[in-house]
Amino acid sequence: MPVRRLVLDVDKTVSEPDLIHLALVIEDVAGVEAVNIAVTEIDIETVGTNVTVEGDGIDVERLIHAIDRTGAVVHSIDEVVAGTYTLENKPRSR
Amino acid sequence: MPVRRLVLDVDKTVSEPDLIHLALVIEDVAGVEAVNIAVTEIDIETVGTNVTVEGDGIDVERLIHAIDRTGAVVHSIDEVVAGTYTLENKPRSR
Amino acid sequence: MPVRRLVLDVDKTVSEPDLIHLALVIEDVAGVEAVNIAVTEIDIETVGTNVTVEGDGIDVERLIHAIDRTGAVVHSIDEVVAGTYTLENKPRSR
Amino acid sequence: MPVRRLVLDVDKTVSEPDLIHLALVIEDVAGVEAVNIAVTEIDIETVGTNVTVEGDGIDVERLIHAIDRTGAVVHSIDEVVAGTYTLENKPRSR
Amino acid sequence: MPVRRLVLDVDKTVSEPDLIHLALVIEDVAGVEAVNIAVTEIDIETVGTNVTVEGDGIDVERLIHAIDRTGAVVHSIDEVVAGTYTLENKPRSR
Amino acid sequence: MPVRRLVLDVDKTVSEPDLIHLALVIEDVAGVEAVNIAVTEIDIETVGTNVTVEGDGIDVERLIHAIDRTGAVVHSIDEVVAGTYTLENKPRSR
Amino acid sequence: MPVRRLVLDVDKTVSEPDLIHLALVIEDVAGVEAVNIAVTEIDIETVGTNVTVEGDGIDVERLIHAIDRTGAVVHSIDEVVAGTYTLENKPRSR
Repeated sequence: MPVRRLVLDVDKTVSEPDLIHLALVIEDVAGVEAVNIAVTEIDIETVGTNVTVEGDGIDVERLIHAIDRTGAVVHSIDEVVAGTYTLENKPRSR
Repeated sequence: MPVRRLVLDVDKTVSEPDLIHLALVIEDVAGVEAVNIAVTEIDIETVGTNVTVEGDGIDVERLIHAIDRTGAVVHSIDEVVAGTYTLENKPRSR
Repeated sequence: MPVRRLVLDVDKTVSEPDLIHLALVIEDVAGVEAVNIAVTEIDIETVGTNVTVEGDGIDVERLIHAIDRTGAVVHSIDEVVAGTYTLENKPRSR
Repeated sequence: MPVRRLVLDVDKTVSEPDLIHLALVIEDVAGVEAVNIAVTEIDIETVGTNVTVEGDGIDVERLIHAIDRTGAVVHSIDEVVAGTYTLENKPRSR
Repeated sequence: MPVRRLVLDVDKTVSEPDLIHLALVIEDVAGVEAVNIAVTEIDIETVGTNVTVEGDGIDVERLIHAIDRTGAVVHSIDEVVAGTYTLENKPRSR
Repeated sequence: MPVRRLVLDVDKTVSEPDLIHLALVIEDVAGVEAVNIAVTEIDIETVGTNVTVEGDGIDVERLIHAIDRTGAVVHSIDEVVAGTYTLENKPRSR
Repeated sequence: MPVRRLVLDVDKTVSEPDLIHLALVIEDVAGVEAVNIAVTEIDIETVGTNVTVEGDGIDVERLIHAIDRTGAVVHSIDEVVAGTYTLENKPRSR
């Protein structure tokens, strides 16, 4: 299963889980080599993040399960890259 | 058939097909080396994506057929690259 | 004839020619090494494209003739590069 | 603990702590290799900064504790990177 | 005479000269190594272009004379680079 | 003291000090390897500049003292980089 | 005198001096390695330019004197770089 990158829309409450904890849980999933969590919105009770995960054969089911168990919520998968190299999105020109 | 890159406008329903499944089906087509699926729009029932596919001699007919069989819909081909290297679009200056 | 790059404004009908066919016809012209066709507009009956062609000594007359024979229409040449290397346009600063 | 980068939203009063002092205190924390403090806002009494910290296994608790002791206030963690390399955030395309 | 780059504002009528012809005439001038002609405006009777020329000791007088003889009109020189390497313009920060 | 970069907001009168003199005075401070002074505003009596200084262990106190002695005024330090390499600011994504 | 780059705001009349002549005069000054003259404004009688000069120990007084003698007018120095390498301006983040 050659999944090389996932971009996820993930929300959490302000206190739970701790961002560092979330990063380390993701980094621990089979096939994950690096994770970037960027906070995109801070509201009174929730924090919205954009989670970028890269690796060589990321175990997607375990990844989403691991995030769910921390108390964070995966709203959507926003990008998937698979194959022999990490291909960037080429936006259409119209 | 030296097709090196295709950019496709692909829609799917929220549940069918799973984005990971779609990526793996595309990655499995003859000549495909890497695929990037970027979600460009989420509506109540449908999800719009921009699908970038690169390879060395992509079998375009099989690619579109493979996408169709997952239940997703190819609306248009938005970019084609063919030749001995991957040439970028040079937008006109007027 | 050291033409290294051409950018063409090309229109076609929605069905004719097929974009893949157009790319392969262009790629087959003497001196052409790579082609990028980017769709810039989709109307009810016509599709507008920006066609970038690179090579070493592109046979421009044959190229335009080959495009015409597919049923597509070359509206204008928007960029020409000639010489010992591929020079980019430097837009004026005023 | 493979934390490679942290981006922090840090406020301080105009006089306390001195920016140079703050940078050197951060740079002294276990695992920190480099720090960038960029001033994003100057008000009458406070200065807002964006603090970027990189290293190999940053000790996050000590880092935040060290900043607190200078009199500056950590408002939020805005980005966390963990793993075998420093992965950039890939913003979603919708 | 170490002129390395010229950017020229050149107009022509829609039919005369042919852009390919103009590029080949410029490419033939002493000291010219590469030329890029980008169309910046198409009016009913005239076509405006931005002509970038690079080389090692471009013969500027002959270049302008050669363009004039094709029937095109040089409106202005918009950039000149001279010296031992091709230096880019650094726009002022105010 | 491993300060690698400072960005300073510095004002001067139109005539005093001469920008070249100011650059050379800064360049002469212990630990400074390079300086860039960019004029950001010209008013009737004063000139606003953005001063970027890089080096290996910049002596910040002497630097600010040296600038003060030329008659220029340091309004604020806008960026500090310290550590084993020159880390760029990563702006937050919200 | 380790001045590595100067950016100058220089005006001239439409006819005097010729831009090519101005470039060659600047290129001839002690310490100058390359010059870029970009036209930023064309008025009825005057032409505004942005002049970028790079070298290793540019003789600034002679440079300005040489420009003055061509009939062009140096309005201001907009950037100075000095030191052991060419440092770019880092704009402040506020």
